[in-house]
Amino acid sequence: NNEGKFICVGLDTDIKKIPQKIKSSPDSIFKFNKEIIERTVDSAAAYKINFAFYEKYGPEGYELLKRTIDIIPDDLITIGDAKRGDIGNTSTMYADSIFNFFSCDATTINPYMGEDSVKPFLEFKDRIIFILALTSNPGANNFEKVKLENGNYLYQEVISKIKEWNSFNNCGVVFGATQIEELKNNLTLINNLPVLLPGVGAQGGSLEEVVQCFKQANRINFLINISRGIIYKSSGDDFGAMAAEELNTLNTKVKKEMKM
Amino acid sequence: NNEGKFICVGLDTDIKKIPQKIKSSPDSIFKFNKEIIERTVDSAAAYKINFAFYEKYGPEGYELLKRTIDIIPDDLITIGDAKRGDIGNTSTMYADSIFNFFSCDATTINPYMGEDSVKPFLEFKDRIIFILALTSNPGANNFEKVKLENGNYLYQEVISKIKEWNSFNNCGVVFGATQIEELKNNLTLINNLPVLLPGVGAQGGSLEEVVQCFKQANRINFLINISRGIIYKSSGDDFGAMAAEELNTLNTKVKKEMKM
Repeated sequence: NNEGKFICVGLDTDIKKIPQKIKSSPDSIFKFNKEIIERTVDSAAAYKINFAFYEKYGPEGYELLKRTIDIIPDDLITIGDAKRGDIGNTSTMYADSIFNFFSCDATTINPYMGEDSVKPFLEFKDRIIFILALTSNPGANNFEKVKLENGNYLYQEVISKIKEWNSFNNCGVVFGATQIEELKNNLTLINNLPVLLPGVGAQGGSLEEVVQCFKQANRINFLINISRGIIYKSSGDDFGAMAAEELNTLNTKVKKEMKM
Repeated sequence: NNEGKFICVGLDTDIKKIPQKIKSSPDSIFKFNKEIIERTVDSAAAYKINFAFYEKYGPEGYELLKRTIDIIPDDLITIGDAKRGDIGNTSTMYADSIFNFFSCDATTINPYMGEDSVKPFLEFKDRIIFILALTSNPGANNFEKVKLENGNYLYQEVISKIKEWNSFNNCGVVFGATQIEELKNNLTLINNLPVLLPGVGAQGGSLEEVVQCFKQANRINFLINISRGIIYKSSGDDFGAMAAEELNTLNTKVKKEMKM
Protein backbone atom coordinates (compact mmCIF):
# COMPACT_ATOMS: atom_id res chain seq x y z
CA ASN A 1 0.00 0.00 0.00
CA ASN A 2 1.17 3.45 -0.86
CA GLU A 3 1.48 6.09 1.86
CA GLY A 4 -1.27 4.85 4.11
CA LYS A 5 -3.99 4.92 1.49
CA PHE A 6 -6.42 2.05 1.85
CA ILE A 7 -9.58 3.27 0.19
CA CYS A 8 -10.43 2.05 -3.27
CA VAL A 9 -12.98 4.20 -5.09
CA GLY A 10 -15.59 2.09 -6.84
CA LEU A 11 -16.72 3.52 -10.15
CA ASP A 12 -20.14 1.85 -10.17
CA THR A 13 -21.51 4.66 -12.24
CA ASP A 14 -25.25 4.46 -12.79
CA ILE A 15 -26.71 6.99 -15.20
CA LYS A 16 -29.84 7.18 -13.01
CA LYS A 17 -27.76 8.51 -10.14
CA ILE A 18 -25.59 11.12 -11.80
CA PRO A 19 -26.41 14.85 -11.66
CA GLN A 20 -29.01 16.14 -14.07
CA LYS A 21 -26.66 18.78 -15.48
CA ILE A 22 -24.23 16.32 -17.05
CA LYS A 23 -26.81 13.58 -17.63
CA SER A 24 -27.97 15.17 -20.87
CA SER A 25 -24.80 14.27 -22.71
CA PRO A 26 -24.45 10.77 -24.17
CA ASP A 27 -20.99 10.86 -22.75
CA SER A 28 -22.23 11.60 -19.25
CA ILE A 29 -20.88 8.47 -17.57
CA PHE A 30 -17.38 9.24 -18.81
CA LYS A 31 -17.66 12.89 -17.75
CA PHE A 32 -18.85 11.83 -14.32
CA ASN A 33 -15.99 9.33 -13.94
CA LYS A 34 -13.45 11.87 -15.18
CA GLU A 35 -14.47 14.42 -12.57
CA ILE A 36 -14.52 11.79 -9.81
CA ILE A 37 -11.05 10.59 -10.80
CA GLU A 38 -9.57 14.08 -11.11
CA ARG A 39 -10.95 15.07 -7.72
CA THR A 40 -9.91 11.92 -5.86
CA VAL A 41 -6.67 10.93 -7.56
CA ASP A 42 -4.40 12.21 -4.79
CA SER A 43 -6.32 10.48 -2.03
CA ALA A 44 -7.39 7.16 -3.56
CA ALA A 45 -5.40 3.96 -3.20
CA ALA A 46 -7.07 2.35 -6.20
CA TYR A 47 -10.09 2.46 -8.47
CA LYS A 48 -12.40 -0.50 -8.91
CA ILE A 49 -14.48 -0.51 -12.05
CA ASN A 50 -17.54 -2.69 -12.10
CA PHE A 51 -17.85 -4.10 -15.61
CA ALA A 52 -21.60 -4.77 -15.28
CA PHE A 53 -22.40 -1.06 -15.13
CA TYR A 54 -20.80 -0.58 -18.56
CA GLU A 55 -21.73 -3.84 -20.30
CA LYS A 56 -25.40 -2.99 -20.10
CA TYR A 57 -24.75 -0.37 -22.82
CA GLY A 58 -23.05 -2.89 -25.10
CA PRO A 59 -20.19 -1.63 -27.31
CA GLU A 60 -20.76 1.99 -26.22
CA GLY A 61 -20.42 0.90 -22.59
CA TYR A 62 -17.18 -0.91 -23.32
CA GLU A 63 -15.90 2.25 -25.00
CA LEU A 64 -16.70 4.23 -21.81
CA LEU A 65 -15.05 1.55 -19.69
CA LYS A 66 -11.88 1.67 -21.78
CA ARG A 67 -11.73 5.47 -21.80
CA THR A 68 -12.28 5.58 -18.03
CA ILE A 69 -9.47 3.11 -17.38
CA ASP A 70 -7.19 5.06 -19.72
CA ILE A 71 -7.46 8.29 -17.70
CA ILE A 72 -6.54 6.65 -14.38
CA PRO A 73 -2.89 7.51 -13.71
CA ASP A 74 -0.47 4.60 -14.01
CA ASP A 75 0.68 4.79 -10.40
CA LEU A 76 -2.82 3.93 -9.13
CA ILE A 77 -4.12 0.35 -9.19
CA THR A 78 -7.06 -0.17 -11.52
CA ILE A 79 -9.16 -3.17 -10.53
CA GLY A 80 -11.39 -4.56 -13.28
CA ASP A 81 -14.23 -5.97 -11.20
CA ALA A 82 -15.53 -8.55 -13.64
CA LYS A 83 -15.80 -11.76 -11.55
CA ARG A 84 -15.08 -13.97 -14.55
CA GLY A 85 -14.24 -17.67 -14.57
CA ASP A 86 -14.72 -20.43 -17.15
CA ILE A 87 -12.91 -23.47 -18.57
CA GLY A 88 -9.24 -22.91 -19.39
CA ASN A 89 -9.43 -21.80 -23.02
CA THR A 90 -12.28 -19.40 -22.19
CA SER A 91 -10.64 -17.95 -19.08
CA THR A 92 -7.63 -17.26 -21.31
CA MET A 93 -9.88 -15.04 -23.44
CA TYR A 94 -11.33 -13.29 -20.40
CA ALA A 95 -7.85 -12.61 -19.02
CA ASP A 96 -6.84 -11.29 -22.44
CA SER A 97 -9.81 -8.90 -22.37
CA ILE A 98 -9.24 -7.59 -18.86
CA PHE A 99 -5.45 -7.41 -18.82
CA ASN A 100 -4.55 -6.76 -22.46
CA PHE A 101 -7.49 -4.95 -24.00
CA PHE A 102 -8.60 -3.01 -20.93
CA SER A 103 -5.10 -2.87 -19.34
CA CYS A 104 -6.35 -3.42 -15.80
CA ASP A 105 -3.74 -3.86 -13.09
CA ALA A 106 -5.94 -6.27 -11.17
CA THR A 107 -9.18 -8.15 -11.50
CA THR A 108 -11.72 -10.12 -9.47
CA ILE A 109 -12.47 -13.71 -10.44
CA ASN A 110 -14.94 -16.39 -9.38
CA PRO A 111 -13.35 -19.65 -8.20
CA TYR A 112 -16.37 -21.99 -8.54
CA MET A 113 -15.00 -23.85 -11.58
CA GLY A 114 -11.62 -24.49 -9.93
CA GLU A 115 -7.98 -24.49 -10.85
CA ASP A 116 -7.99 -24.54 -14.66
CA SER A 117 -10.51 -21.66 -14.66
CA VAL A 118 -8.17 -19.58 -12.49
CA LYS A 119 -4.77 -20.41 -13.98
CA PRO A 120 -4.99 -18.32 -17.20
CA PHE A 121 -5.40 -15.19 -15.05
CA LEU A 122 -2.42 -16.10 -12.87
CA GLU A 123 -0.20 -16.23 -15.96
CA PHE A 124 -0.24 -12.45 -15.81
CA LYS A 125 2.49 -12.30 -13.20
CA ASP A 126 2.57 -8.51 -12.83
CA ARG A 127 -1.17 -8.18 -12.10
CA ILE A 128 -3.18 -8.93 -8.98
CA ILE A 129 -5.91 -11.56 -9.16
CA PHE A 130 -8.43 -11.11 -6.34
CA ILE A 131 -10.32 -14.37 -6.01
CA LEU A 132 -13.77 -14.42 -4.39
CA ALA A 133 -13.61 -16.12 -1.01
CA LEU A 134 -16.37 -14.82 1.26
CA THR A 135 -18.49 -12.10 -0.33
CA SER A 136 -20.39 -9.28 1.36
CA ASN A 137 -23.91 -10.22 0.21
CA PRO A 138 -26.63 -12.26 1.99
CA GLY A 139 -26.29 -15.06 -0.60
CA ALA A 140 -22.84 -15.81 0.83
CA ASN A 141 -24.72 -18.06 3.25
CA ASN A 142 -25.96 -20.39 0.50
CA PHE A 143 -22.67 -21.92 -0.63
CA GLU A 144 -19.65 -19.93 0.52
CA LYS A 145 -20.53 -20.53 4.18
CA VAL A 146 -21.61 -24.13 3.76
CA LYS A 147 -19.69 -26.53 6.00
CA LEU A 148 -17.59 -29.23 4.39
CA GLU A 149 -17.00 -32.79 5.50
CA ASN A 150 -13.45 -31.82 6.51
CA GLY A 151 -14.79 -29.24 8.97
CA ASN A 152 -13.89 -26.18 6.90
CA TYR A 153 -16.33 -23.79 5.31
CA LEU A 154 -16.24 -23.62 1.53
CA TYR A 155 -14.72 -20.12 1.55
CA GLN A 156 -11.90 -21.43 3.75
CA GLU A 157 -11.27 -24.25 1.28
CA VAL A 158 -11.09 -21.58 -1.42
CA ILE A 159 -8.57 -19.54 0.58
CA SER A 160 -6.41 -22.64 1.10
CA LYS A 161 -6.44 -23.32 -2.65
CA ILE A 162 -5.58 -19.69 -3.41
CA LYS A 163 -2.44 -20.12 -1.30
CA GLU A 164 -1.51 -23.19 -3.38
CA TRP A 165 -2.12 -21.23 -6.60
CA ASN A 166 -0.01 -18.28 -5.48
CA SER A 167 3.34 -19.37 -6.91
CA PHE A 168 3.75 -16.09 -8.81
CA ASN A 169 2.77 -14.13 -5.71
CA ASN A 170 -0.03 -12.38 -7.57
CA CYS A 171 -3.14 -13.73 -5.81
CA GLY A 172 -5.44 -11.81 -3.52
CA VAL A 173 -8.66 -12.53 -1.70
CA VAL A 174 -12.07 -10.85 -1.86
CA PHE A 175 -13.57 -10.81 1.63
CA GLY A 176 -16.80 -8.98 2.47
CA ALA A 177 -16.49 -6.15 4.99
CA THR A 178 -19.90 -7.26 6.30
CA GLN A 179 -18.35 -10.57 7.46
CA ILE A 180 -16.40 -9.09 10.35
CA GLU A 181 -16.28 -12.11 12.68
CA GLU A 182 -15.17 -14.34 9.84
CA LEU A 183 -12.54 -11.78 8.84
CA LYS A 184 -11.08 -11.76 12.36
CA ASN A 185 -11.07 -15.54 12.52
CA ASN A 186 -9.47 -16.04 9.13
CA LEU A 187 -6.68 -13.48 8.97
CA THR A 188 -4.21 -16.17 9.99
CA LEU A 189 -5.44 -18.46 7.21
CA ILE A 190 -5.34 -15.58 4.70
CA ASN A 191 -1.77 -14.93 5.84
CA ASN A 192 0.03 -12.48 3.57
CA LEU A 193 -2.46 -12.46 0.68
CA PRO A 194 -3.72 -8.95 -0.13
CA VAL A 195 -7.39 -8.52 0.75
CA LEU A 196 -9.96 -6.53 -1.20
CA LEU A 197 -12.95 -5.66 0.99
CA PRO A 198 -16.23 -4.59 -0.55
CA GLY A 199 -19.35 -4.03 1.54
CA VAL A 200 -18.58 -0.92 3.61
CA GLY A 201 -21.38 1.65 3.46
CA ALA A 202 -24.48 0.82 1.40
CA GLN A 203 -24.12 -2.87 2.24
CA GLY A 204 -23.69 -2.28 5.95
CA GLY A 205 -20.02 -3.04 6.67
CA SER A 206 -18.17 -0.84 9.18
CA LEU A 207 -14.98 0.90 8.09
CA GLU A 208 -13.70 1.16 11.64
CA GLU A 209 -14.26 -2.52 12.41
CA VAL A 210 -12.48 -3.63 9.26
CA VAL A 211 -9.51 -1.39 9.92
CA GLN A 212 -9.32 -2.56 13.56
CA CYS A 213 -9.11 -6.16 12.37
CA PHE A 214 -6.06 -5.44 10.26
CA LYS A 215 -4.53 -3.11 12.82
CA GLN A 216 -4.74 -5.76 15.53
CA ALA A 217 -3.20 -8.32 13.22
CA ASN A 218 -0.48 -5.80 12.35
CA ARG A 219 -1.30 -6.02 8.67
CA ILE A 220 -1.42 -3.35 5.99
CA ASN A 221 -2.02 -5.27 2.76
CA PHE A 222 -5.71 -4.51 2.34
CA LEU A 223 -7.95 -2.31 0.21
CA ILE A 224 -11.41 -1.21 1.31
CA ASN A 225 -13.68 -0.54 -1.62
CA ILE A 226 -16.35 2.10 -1.31
CA SER A 227 -18.48 2.89 -4.32
CA ARG A 228 -21.87 4.48 -3.66
CA GLY A 229 -20.70 6.07 -0.38
CA ILE A 230 -18.15 8.18 -2.25
CA ILE A 231 -19.32 8.77 -5.81
CA TYR A 232 -22.95 9.55 -4.92
CA LYS A 233 -22.16 11.51 -1.74
CA SER A 234 -23.87 14.45 -3.43
CA SER A 235 -26.47 14.25 -6.15
CA GLY A 236 -25.83 17.86 -7.13
CA ASP A 237 -23.25 19.51 -9.34
CA ASP A 238 -20.77 19.44 -6.46
CA PHE A 239 -20.55 15.62 -6.66
CA GLY A 240 -16.83 15.74 -7.46
CA ALA A 241 -15.91 18.02 -4.58
CA MET A 242 -18.12 16.09 -2.19
CA ALA A 243 -16.63 12.75 -3.30
CA ALA A 244 -13.16 14.15 -2.62
CA GLU A 245 -14.24 15.47 0.77
CA GLU A 246 -15.80 12.13 1.70
CA LEU A 247 -12.69 10.23 0.63
CA ASN A 248 -10.54 12.53 2.77
CA THR A 249 -12.86 11.97 5.73
CA LEU A 250 -12.59 8.21 5.21
CA ASN A 251 -8.79 8.39 4.92
CA THR A 252 -8.63 10.35 8.18
CA LYS A 253 -10.78 7.72 9.89
CA VAL A 254 -8.53 4.94 8.64
CA LYS A 255 -5.38 6.73 9.75
CA LYS A 256 -6.85 7.33 13.19
CA GLU A 257 -7.74 3.65 13.58
CA MET A 258 -4.35 2.58 12.26
CA LYS A 259 -2.68 5.19 14.51
CA MET A 260 -0.57 6.30 11.56
CA ASN B 1 -37.07 -29.39 -27.48
CA ASN B 2 -38.14 -28.85 -31.05
CA GLU B 3 -38.46 -31.81 -33.38
CA GLY B 4 -35.80 -34.02 -31.90
CA LYS B 5 -33.01 -31.48 -32.14
CA PHE B 6 -30.67 -31.59 -29.18
CA ILE B 7 -27.43 -30.14 -30.48
CA CYS B 8 -26.52 -26.61 -29.58
CA VAL B 9 -23.87 -25.06 -31.83
CA GLY B 10 -21.27 -23.18 -29.85
CA LEU B 11 -20.02 -20.05 -31.56
CA ASP B 12 -16.65 -19.95 -29.80
CA THR B 13 -15.17 -18.20 -32.76
CA ASP B 14 -11.42 -17.72 -32.52
CA ILE B 15 -9.83 -15.62 -35.23
CA LYS B 16 -6.75 -17.87 -35.13
CA LYS B 17 -8.87 -20.80 -36.22
CA ILE B 18 -10.94 -19.38 -39.03
CA PRO B 19 -10.03 -19.89 -42.68
CA GLN B 20 -7.33 -17.67 -44.15
CA LYS B 21 -9.57 -16.49 -46.96
CA ILE B 22 -12.04 -14.66 -44.73
CA LYS B 23 -9.53 -13.87 -42.01
CA SER B 24 -8.20 -10.85 -43.89
CA SER B 25 -11.34 -8.82 -43.25
CA PRO B 26 -11.73 -7.03 -39.91
CA ASP B 27 -15.23 -8.36 -39.97
CA SER B 28 -14.08 -11.93 -40.34
CA ILE B 29 -15.56 -13.26 -37.11
CA PHE B 30 -19.00 -12.03 -38.07
CA LYS B 31 -18.66 -13.43 -41.59
CA PHE B 32 -17.59 -16.78 -40.18
CA ASN B 33 -20.52 -16.84 -37.73
CA LYS B 34 -22.96 -15.80 -40.44
CA GLU B 35 -21.95 -18.66 -42.68
CA ILE B 36 -22.03 -21.17 -39.81
CA ILE B 37 -25.51 -19.97 -38.80
CA GLU B 38 -26.88 -19.98 -42.36
CA ARG B 39 -25.59 -23.48 -42.95
CA THR B 40 -26.75 -24.99 -39.67
CA VAL B 41 -29.95 -23.12 -38.95
CA ASP B 42 -32.27 -25.96 -39.99
CA SER B 43 -30.46 -28.57 -37.94
CA ALA B 44 -29.42 -26.74 -34.78
CA ALA B 45 -31.50 -26.74 -31.60
CA ALA B 46 -29.80 -23.63 -30.27
CA TYR B 47 -26.71 -21.46 -30.51
CA LYS B 48 -24.47 -20.79 -27.56
CA ILE B 49 -22.32 -17.71 -27.80
CA ASN B 50 -19.31 -17.52 -25.57
CA PHE B 51 -18.95 -13.88 -24.50
CA ALA B 52 -15.23 -14.23 -23.70
CA PHE B 53 -14.33 -14.78 -27.35
CA TYR B 54 -15.84 -11.37 -28.19
CA GLU B 55 -14.93 -9.35 -25.11
CA LYS B 56 -11.25 -9.72 -25.84
CA TYR B 57 -11.77 -7.25 -28.72
CA GLY B 58 -13.48 -4.69 -26.50
CA PRO B 59 -16.25 -2.55 -28.06
CA GLU B 60 -15.62 -4.01 -31.50
CA GLY B 61 -16.07 -7.50 -30.12
CA TYR B 62 -19.34 -6.52 -28.45
CA GLU B 63 -20.50 -5.14 -31.80
CA LEU B 64 -19.73 -8.52 -33.43
CA LEU B 65 -21.51 -10.33 -30.61
CA LYS B 66 -24.61 -8.18 -31.00
CA ARG B 67 -24.67 -8.54 -34.78
CA THR B 68 -24.21 -12.31 -34.52
CA ILE B 69 -27.11 -12.65 -32.07
CA ASP B 70 -29.26 -10.45 -34.30
CA ILE B 71 -28.97 -12.81 -37.29
CA ILE B 72 -30.01 -15.92 -35.37
CA PRO B 73 -33.67 -16.59 -36.25
CA ASP B 74 -36.14 -15.93 -33.44
CA ASP B 75 -37.38 -19.53 -33.30
CA LEU B 76 -33.95 -20.77 -32.24
CA ILE B 77 -32.72 -20.39 -28.66
CA THR B 78 -29.74 -18.10 -28.28
CA ILE B 79 -27.73 -18.83 -25.15
CA GLY B 80 -25.48 -16.01 -23.98
CA ASP B 81 -22.71 -18.00 -22.30
CA ALA B 82 -21.42 -15.35 -19.94
CA LYS B 83 -21.28 -17.12 -16.53
CA ARG B 84 -21.97 -13.90 -14.66
CA GLY B 85 -22.89 -13.47 -11.00
CA ASP B 86 -22.42 -10.65 -8.49
CA ILE B 87 -24.26 -8.90 -5.65
CA GLY B 88 -27.89 -8.04 -6.40
CA ASN B 89 -27.58 -4.54 -7.86
CA THR B 90 -24.71 -5.67 -10.07
CA SER B 91 -26.39 -8.88 -11.25
CA THR B 92 -29.32 -6.67 -12.24
CA MET B 93 -26.98 -4.83 -14.60
CA TYR B 94 -25.55 -8.06 -16.01
CA ALA B 95 -29.05 -9.41 -16.63
CA ASP B 96 -29.94 -6.12 -18.32
CA SER B 97 -26.92 -6.49 -20.60
CA ILE B 98 -27.54 -10.10 -21.57
CA PHE B 99 -31.33 -10.07 -21.84
CA ASN B 100 -32.11 -6.49 -22.88
CA PHE B 101 -29.10 -5.22 -24.75
CA PHE B 102 -28.02 -8.48 -26.37
CA SER B 103 -31.55 -9.99 -26.42
CA CYS B 104 -30.41 -13.50 -25.50
CA ASP B 105 -33.11 -16.10 -24.86
CA ALA B 106 -31.01 -17.81 -22.23
CA THR B 107 -27.78 -17.38 -20.29
CA THR B 108 -25.36 -19.25 -18.07
CA ILE B 109 -24.68 -17.94 -14.57
CA ASN B 110 -22.31 -18.80 -11.74
CA PRO B 111 -24.00 -19.60 -8.40
CA TYR B 112 -21.03 -19.11 -6.03
CA MET B 113 -22.38 -15.85 -4.53
CA GLY B 114 -25.81 -17.35 -3.80
CA GLU B 115 -29.43 -16.34 -4.01
CA ASP B 116 -29.32 -12.56 -4.34
CA SER B 117 -26.73 -12.92 -7.12
CA VAL B 118 -29.08 -15.22 -9.05
CA LYS B 119 -32.47 -13.58 -8.46
CA PRO B 120 -32.11 -10.59 -10.86
CA PHE B 121 -31.67 -13.04 -13.74
CA LEU B 122 -34.72 -15.04 -12.69
CA GLU B 123 -36.88 -11.90 -12.94
CA PHE B 124 -36.74 -12.43 -16.70
CA LYS B 125 -39.54 -14.97 -16.66
CA ASP B 126 -39.52 -15.74 -20.38
CA ARG B 127 -35.82 -16.58 -20.53
CA ILE B 128 -33.89 -19.65 -19.42
CA ILE B 129 -31.23 -19.28 -16.77
CA PHE B 130 -28.78 -22.18 -16.87
CA ILE B 131 -26.97 -22.23 -13.54
CA LEU B 132 -23.56 -23.91 -13.22
CA ALA B 133 -23.84 -27.11 -11.21
CA LEU B 134 -21.11 -29.57 -12.20
CA THR B 135 -18.89 -28.30 -15.00
CA SER B 136 -16.96 -30.30 -17.59
CA ASN B 137 -13.45 -29.17 -16.68
CA PRO B 138 -10.82 -30.79 -14.39
CA GLY B 139 -11.17 -27.93 -11.89
CA ALA B 140 -14.67 -29.19 -11.09
CA ASN B 141 -12.90 -31.42 -8.57
CA ASN B 142 -11.66 -28.49 -6.48
CA PHE B 143 -14.93 -27.14 -5.15
CA GLU B 144 -17.95 -28.41 -7.09
CA LYS B 145 -17.17 -32.00 -6.10
CA VAL B 146 -16.17 -31.26 -2.55
CA LYS B 147 -18.20 -33.20 0.02
CA LEU B 148 -20.31 -31.26 2.48
CA GLU B 149 -21.01 -32.00 6.12
CA ASN B 150 -24.58 -33.03 5.15
CA GLY B 151 -23.24 -35.75 2.85
CA ASN B 152 -24.01 -33.98 -0.42
CA TYR B 153 -21.47 -32.70 -2.87
CA LEU B 154 -21.46 -28.95 -3.41
CA TYR B 155 -22.89 -29.29 -6.94
CA GLN B 156 -25.81 -31.28 -5.49
CA GLU B 157 -26.42 -28.52 -2.96
CA VAL B 158 -26.48 -26.09 -5.89
CA ILE B 159 -29.01 -28.23 -7.77
CA SER B 160 -31.25 -28.38 -4.69
CA LYS B 161 -31.13 -24.59 -4.40
CA ILE B 162 -31.90 -24.18 -8.11
CA LYS B 163 -35.09 -26.15 -7.55
CA GLU B 164 -36.04 -23.75 -4.73
CA TRP B 165 -35.30 -20.78 -6.98
CA ASN B 166 -37.37 -22.12 -9.87
CA SER B 167 -40.71 -20.52 -9.02
CA PHE B 168 -40.98 -18.94 -12.49
CA ASN B 169 -40.04 -22.25 -14.09
CA ASN B 170 -37.16 -20.64 -15.93
CA CYS B 171 -34.14 -22.31 -14.33
CA GLY B 172 -31.86 -24.84 -15.96
CA VAL B 173 -28.68 -26.66 -14.98
CA VAL B 174 -25.24 -26.76 -16.57
CA PHE B 175 -23.82 -30.25 -16.23
CA GLY B 176 -20.58 -31.35 -17.88
CA ALA B 177 -20.87 -34.14 -20.44
CA THR B 178 -17.54 -35.40 -19.12
CA GLN B 179 -19.20 -36.20 -15.77
CA ILE B 180 -21.17 -39.18 -16.99
CA GLU B 181 -21.41 -41.19 -13.76
CA GLU B 182 -22.53 -38.11 -11.85
CA LEU B 183 -25.06 -37.31 -14.56
CA LYS B 184 -26.60 -40.79 -14.27
CA ASN B 185 -26.72 -40.56 -10.50
CA ASN B 186 -28.25 -37.09 -10.40
CA LEU B 187 -30.98 -37.13 -13.03
CA THR B 188 -33.52 -37.84 -10.30
CA LEU B 189 -32.28 -34.87 -8.29
CA ILE B 190 -32.25 -32.66 -11.39
CA ASN B 191 -35.82 -33.75 -12.02
CA ASN B 192 -37.51 -31.70 -14.74
CA LEU B 193 -34.94 -28.89 -14.97
CA PRO B 194 -33.58 -28.47 -18.50
CA VAL B 195 -29.93 -29.47 -18.75
CA LEU B 196 -27.25 -27.79 -20.85
CA LEU B 197 -24.32 -30.12 -21.41
CA PRO B 198 -20.96 -28.78 -22.55
CA GLY B 199 -17.87 -30.98 -22.82
CA VAL B 200 -18.62 -33.33 -25.73
CA GLY B 201 -15.77 -33.49 -28.23
CA ALA B 202 -12.65 -31.44 -27.53
CA GLN B 203 -13.12 -31.90 -23.78
CA GLY B 204 -13.62 -35.65 -23.99
CA GLY B 205 -17.33 -36.19 -23.27
CA SER B 206 -19.18 -38.86 -25.26
CA LEU B 207 -22.29 -37.87 -27.19
CA GLU B 208 -23.67 -41.42 -27.12
CA GLU B 209 -23.21 -41.83 -23.38
CA VAL B 210 -24.93 -38.54 -22.63
CA VAL B 211 -27.87 -39.35 -24.87
CA GLN B 212 -28.18 -42.85 -23.36
CA CYS B 213 -28.44 -41.30 -19.89
CA PHE B 214 -31.42 -39.20 -20.91
CA LYS B 215 -32.95 -41.96 -23.03
CA GLN B 216 -32.89 -44.38 -20.11
CA ALA B 217 -34.45 -41.79 -17.85
CA ASN B 218 -37.07 -41.12 -20.51
CA ARG B 219 -36.16 -37.45 -20.65
CA ILE B 220 -35.87 -35.05 -23.55
CA ASN B 221 -35.25 -31.67 -21.96
CA PHE B 222 -31.55 -31.42 -22.62
CA LEU B 223 -29.20 -29.57 -24.96
CA ILE B 224 -25.74 -30.85 -25.84
CA ASN B 225 -23.38 -28.05 -26.74
CA ILE B 226 -20.65 -28.69 -29.27
CA SER B 227 -18.43 -25.82 -30.31
CA ARG B 228 -15.02 -26.72 -31.71
CA GLY B 229 -16.23 -30.10 -33.01
CA ILE B 230 -18.67 -28.40 -35.35
CA ILE B 231 -17.40 -24.95 -36.27
CA TYR B 232 -13.78 -26.00 -36.85
CA LYS B 233 -14.59 -29.31 -38.51
CA SER B 234 -12.80 -27.97 -41.56
CA SER B 235 -10.11 -25.30 -41.56
CA GLY B 236 -10.66 -24.68 -45.26
CA ASP B 237 -13.12 -22.58 -47.19
CA ASP B 238 -15.67 -25.39 -46.90
CA PHE B 239 -15.99 -24.79 -43.12
CA GLY B 240 -19.69 -23.93 -43.42
CA ALA B 241 -20.63 -27.00 -45.42
CA MET B 242 -18.52 -29.23 -43.21
CA ALA B 243 -20.06 -27.78 -40.06
CA ALA B 244 -23.52 -28.51 -41.48
CA GLU B 245 -22.49 -32.04 -42.41
CA GLU B 246 -21.03 -32.67 -38.95
CA LEU B 247 -24.16 -31.33 -37.27
CA ASN B 248 -26.31 -33.64 -39.38
CA THR B 249 -24.09 -36.59 -38.47
CA LEU B 250 -24.43 -35.69 -34.80
CA ASN B 251 -28.22 -35.33 -35.12
CA THR B 252 -28.42 -38.77 -36.74
CA LYS B 253 -26.36 -40.26 -33.90
CA VAL B 254 -28.65 -38.68 -31.32
CA LYS B 255 -31.80 -39.88 -33.07
CA LYS B 256 -30.38 -43.38 -33.29
CA GLU B 257 -29.60 -43.45 -29.57
CA MET B 258 -33.00 -41.94 -28.74
CA LYS B 259 -34.69 -44.38 -31.17
CA MET B 260 -36.66 -41.49 -32.63
